[in-house]
Amino acid sequence: MTLNPDPERIRRDIHTLSEIIDPDEEGFTRLSFSEEYDRATALVSGLMEREAGMIVKRDAIGNLIGKREGIKKEAPALMIGSHLDTVRQGGKYDGIIGVLAGLETARCLHEEDLHLHHPLEVVAFLAEEPSPYGMSTIGSKGMAGHLTVEALQKAKNSQGENLYQAIRKAGGNPDHVADVRRTPDSLAAYLELHIEQGPILDHKHLPLGLVTGIVSIYRGKITITGISNHAGTTPMSMRRDALQAAAEAAISFDKTCRRYEQMVGTVGEFNNYPNASNVIPGRVTMGVEMRSPVTEDIETGLEEIRGELNRIEDKKGVAIETDFWLSSPGVTFPESILEMSRQTCRDYDYPYLEMPSGAGHDSSYLSEITPTGMIFVPSRNGLSHCPEEFTDLPDIMRGIEVIAAMILKLDTNPPRR
Amino acid sequence: MTLNPDPERIRRDIHTLSEIIDPDEEGFTRLSFSEEYDRATALVSGLMEREAGMIVKRDAIGNLIGKREGIKKEAPALMIGSHLDTVRQGGKYDGIIGVLAGLETARCLHEEDLHLHHPLEVVAFLAEEPSPYGMSTIGSKGMAGHLTVEALQKAKNSQGENLYQAIRKAGGNPDHVADVRRTPDSLAAYLELHIEQGPILDHKHLPLGLVTGIVSIYRGKITITGISNHAGTTPMSMRRDALQAAAEAAISFDKTCRRYEQMVGTVGEFNNYPNASNVIPGRVTMGVEMRSPVTEDIETGLEEIRGELNRIEDKKGVAIETDFWLSSPGVTFPESILEMSRQTCRDYDYPYLEMPSGAGHDSSYLSEITPTGMIFVPSRNGLSHCPEEFTDLPDIMRGIEVIAAMILKLDTNPPRR
Repeated sequence: MTLNPDPERIRRDIHTLSEIIDPDEEGFTRLSFSEEYDRATALVSGLMEREAGMIVKRDAIGNLIGKREGIKKEAPALMIGSHLDTVRQGGKYDGIIGVLAGLETARCLHEEDLHLHHPLEVVAFLAEEPSPYGMSTIGSKGMAGHLTVEALQKAKNSQGENLYQAIRKAGGNPDHVADVRRTPDSLAAYLELHIEQGPILDHKHLPLGLVTGIVSIYRGKITITGISNHAGTTPMSMRRDALQAAAEAAISFDKTCRRYEQMVGTVGEFNNYPNASNVIPGRVTMGVEMRSPVTEDIETGLEEIRGELNRIEDKKGVAIETDFWLSSPGVTFPESILEMSRQTCRDYDYPYLEMPSGAGHDSSYLSEITPTGMIFVPSRNGLSHCPEEFTDLPDIMRGIEVIAAMILKLDTNPPRR
Repeated sequence: MTLNPDPERIRRDIHTLSEIIDPDEEGFTRLSFSEEYDRATALVSGLMEREAGMIVKRDAIGNLIGKREGIKKEAPALMIGSHLDTVRQGGKYDGIIGVLAGLETARCLHEEDLHLHHPLEVVAFLAEEPSPYGMSTIGSKGMAGHLTVEALQKAKNSQGENLYQAIRKAGGNPDHVADVRRTPDSLAAYLELHIEQGPILDHKHLPLGLVTGIVSIYRGKITITGISNHAGTTPMSMRRDALQAAAEAAISFDKTCRRYEQMVGTVGEFNNYPNASNVIPGRVTMGVEMRSPVTEDIETGLEEIRGELNRIEDKKGVAIETDFWLSSPGVTFPESILEMSRQTCRDYDYPYLEMPSGAGHDSSYLSEITPTGMIFVPSRNGLSHCPEEFTDLPDIMRGIEVIAAMILKLDTNPPRR
């Protein structure tokens, strides 16, 4: 038994969704809780019902869930999902193709009148991208049981409106957020197709990435305090220039991260005070992050960075304070699902690369409650979160084929718990 | 004949002026065009009249000028001056002591009933510090003939009010700005006492600086363009990180400036885009400046910096654009006045250092129209433009003594033109 996903349907759906955007923004903007987001969700909901014969509901916080019953009605569900929201001025593929992979799998089953033993659920998770309420991956967090009424009330946008009110305004029932939680015994497995959002597959000319897990993310703030002074009257030998010390710190941070093969590290934020061309900088704050699938590497790297910063303190006569914290613990997807994805690629004779995901995804939360697997398809030039984001349709179709084939395998051979 | 400046009067005047400030700001704030500035000017005007018997006027833009007639009424004037305005949250000494040096010289002459051959003018120049209208050294610019009605109308504050309106509101007559200009034949010489605003005299334990001139100032903007990308999904080897390139550029700029003995160079401004901890910086702009009394050194240094930036472009895969311009041409004060100041220090047995001024002053514009000399007194720890700004009264008195003695010398021995 094989399913035959239809590229013309996928091309049409990507195109239709790409037009449901905020007309006042450049690129593709469909923020969660916007009018566009509502229309896109309604469109997908209609396709689930009309083209895949699914029963559709929105849960208490607004996750869109299409369900196709299984032969064994009480069996735990196989779930496929991703998200329909975009970042501001984002692209046409991020999130969308994961939802369409689920929808297309259901459509193929519906067309062929094939019935799985397990129920199939296709989910568009609420607000995977950073929402105006300062929270991302809201839908998957809710499903993993991380949200409470209090948490929703605490998350506020710049106008002071909170997430609880926003969910209610969007037709949800935030008082019942606890009901959004899925217990492990209600799910058999979760699969997600996503664009890589990085350059590796494109660079290596490989069509598929089998995601081994999601990296640990450490964030940090480095504050460098020197002495602000007149740029004209202070001799070079008597300066305690915070910016010069920060420049050395930034280079040293980058060099340390490069010494670890699987690590990336970035000085993304740099604020200079008082930031006037005729004043020697007295203070710089840097926002940094380090990511690796090997948490120990980050911890060793951090020790090295602290040592380098001490050296710079002495050399430059400045004070350096650091604060590092684990922002997002890493996830390793189970070998059973990874092996099933390898086997599926071999069945189709599709080359693949096993790789960690450097970005967070809804799959990170789903993996807390059910065996999870994730497939990447290439992003041209590694570009994402911008209008230039592009993934070739044949690559998307290969990804959908692998997801659909894995669902058939998981149905007869569900992962042991 | 010697004059005997009175430290108690100077202590009293510094104290009185230090209380005429904006009560809502920390430190000492007396911005030009403020109510405090008006009161301070009125105070000094009263002292000129009552304690020095001067005829006081304000010129068309608001320079305060106290005049003591000379024996030869038609002789060109000897002028002493500085400014009464401060930066926001500034100190008690910057500007003030130069005006008090003039006032005290006039008071000593008045008390002893001594009459110079030349008229003596004591000036408090309008708005030496950056004014809300985006212009500094307004008063001395006007005296050197650099201002027109159009220029005053063009200079606007953030509310859209222009300098022309502000001068009129303060009681001036901006239509007559051309009358503010002083011709070279109306002046015999100009002297200014000022705090160093740098650490050199304090560091060397020397009480007096004889200013050889004012440095040339070059300003520049360096724009570094890389590629902004996802900090989690872009491998280190595939980045074009604008911030990392900018950090190398900032260090290289600093190193080059240090190779020239009399040069200072500063990366004071650093703006990073998009400036989010999870995004690889795509663009950085830096505002830099270089100062030296040796303009050729700056030009040679700039060539070296351009070469270094080319190297960084290649190494880091970024594009670097530069724009450098001469912001303020240097001034060399005439040897005749400098030699007179050396001789005066020797008369008093005061040690001194000959040094360029790294900061701009009203003397820079006055030197365009008359032989000019400038004396520095130490700033404790080099601090200025802050509430901690401090100069010891004995140091101030030595400076006033030298200025007063030089006026007597200039009166009998005016510089040749």
